[in-house]
Amino acid sequence: MSYEDVFKDDLEFLDRALHEFLPSAEIYPQTLHQAMRYAVLGGGKRFRPVMVLAACETLGGTRQQAVFPAVALEFIHCYSLVQDDLPALDNDDLRRGQPTCHRKYGEATALLASDGLLTLAFELLARVKPAERAVQLVAEISTAAGTCGMIGGQSADLEAVSKAPDSALLDFVNIHKTGKLIKASAVSGALAAGADPESLRRIERYGESVGLAFQCVDDLQDGDGYLRYMTYGELNEKTRTLLKNARQEVAIFGAQAAKLVFLADFLEQRIPVKAT
Amino acid sequence: MSYEDVFKDDLEFLDRALHEFLPSAEIYPQTLHQAMRYAVLGGGKRFRPVMVLAACETLGGTRQQAVFPAVALEFIHCYSLVQDDLPALDNDDLRRGQPTCHRKYGEATALLASDGLLTLAFELLARVKPAERAVQLVAEISTAAGTCGMIGGQSADLEAVSKAPDSALLDFVNIHKTGKLIKASAVSGALAAGADPESLRRIERYGESVGLAFQCVDDLQDGDGYLRYMTYGELNEKTRTLLKNARQEVAIFGAQAAKLVFLADFLEQRIPVKAT
Repeated sequence: MSYEDVFKDDLEFLDRALHEFLPSAEIYPQTLHQAMRYAVLGGGKRFRPVMVLAACETLGGTRQQAVFPAVALEFIHCYSLVQDDLPALDNDDLRRGQPTCHRKYGEATALLASDGLLTLAFELLARVKPAERAVQLVAEISTAAGTCGMIGGQSADLEAVSKAPDSALLDFVNIHKTGKLIKASAVSGALAAGADPESLRRIERYGESVGLAFQCVDDLQDGDGYLRYMTYGELNEKTRTLLKNARQEVAIFGAQAAKLVFLADFLEQRIPVKAT
Repeated sequence: MSYEDVFKDDLEFLDRALHEFLPSAEIYPQTLHQAMRYAVLGGGKRFRPVMVLAACETLGGTRQQAVFPAVALEFIHCYSLVQDDLPALDNDDLRRGQPTCHRKYGEATALLASDGLLTLAFELLARVKPAERAVQLVAEISTAAGTCGMIGGQSADLEAVSKAPDSALLDFVNIHKTGKLIKASAVSGALAAGADPESLRRIERYGESVGLAFQCVDDLQDGDGYLRYMTYGELNEKTRTLLKNARQEVAIFGAQAAKLVFLADFLEQRIPVKAT
């Protein structure tokens, strides 16, 4: 079964939710809202919000319980992509084969659109009931997106470019820039389902392992990053161990964790076979 | 009494709180955290957080109850200043006589620092107790900072530059770009104090009037903005009426509203006497 088959209903549900919670392109200022929609609705695997739904389902929650954190995390992911592409950072002209947001709407509007997405993420989280759960989600996601999370990772990444990076710096970048938001996706799904502390801790460790494995798979595909410090064989083994640990953490939930297990399998299948 | 005299204790309290809630410059990634501190600790009137404290005091709340929204609103104000100064927007080299954040730390770090401030604002709001109050504050402040608030005003401002603006567009820009965050400051102070609905509504109208008057005073000082559509006399009268209305809204609270009244007086005293 492909990713698209396994998550067909989830992806359709998310697509509707993203459309619904983005400001309409008819609302003033239209260009700003169009740029936000362009940044989000241009496709992508939706790995993070799918993981939110999967974690929530694992603990007996419904999609509707998970919809606000799922959409919020995708908005935050997209805001980070828009900013990554800006001239001050990676200066990219294309993303997924289309002009990047600032190439299409100009730098100023792209920047404001990215701000709008980050801000809207928190506006949506405030709509979660009960209030205690909303606050848990705001705390978890703001920390994961902040300077001790994703933003900190991006900043460390800038440093890594300007000086000879070592493997400790690379670990920091990967855990923070990519890993923290993926871990927060798993945790948010669990929080949305009202997880007990022990289940929450399991899902947290699952998210931590998958978050780091996500970046390792990228490096194995691109031949970069960790492969500057490890052999292919070492990184291959590290990645498979992380994914195995992730699956073991959620094995206790049986069939209800099928989608979380599939997400780990999906990453493992993307590990390229090394040309010999 | 000067602004600094009236708010001496509040400003000292805020200064300590801003120092405390900003990430330490010793924490990795240091440059990022230094840039955030630079963006916030370089001075300024602290008009918004002072208003949060004043509104909270008016309704019988303590400074400690108001500290998280006060600091959060100042962080959001500072994030907007850092971004305003960027080359893609106003391209300013100086702010308050010092190099702007991107001139000192580079564009990429300045951008990440501004993101860090916005994100940290919500992290702090999640610490407000009880949870219901935290959620009210996240909802109020995210809406005021978002595309139907400050970001929307900035976007409309870009449009106003590129085409002949009319007075309706100017109203939109001023109400949204400046006014919404000032209104949110008053409302947040009231929410932090656990305001009843009728008091909250009064404080809201106060904040709305002062927020718009704030921009009018700027225009009277700069000879720009509204003065392209109104005579000095008309804008002078409009501004004084707004401030009078603001004071009337809070008159019912008597001496407890003294600081809110002073903030309106303070703006009125800044209206320049027209050279005749």
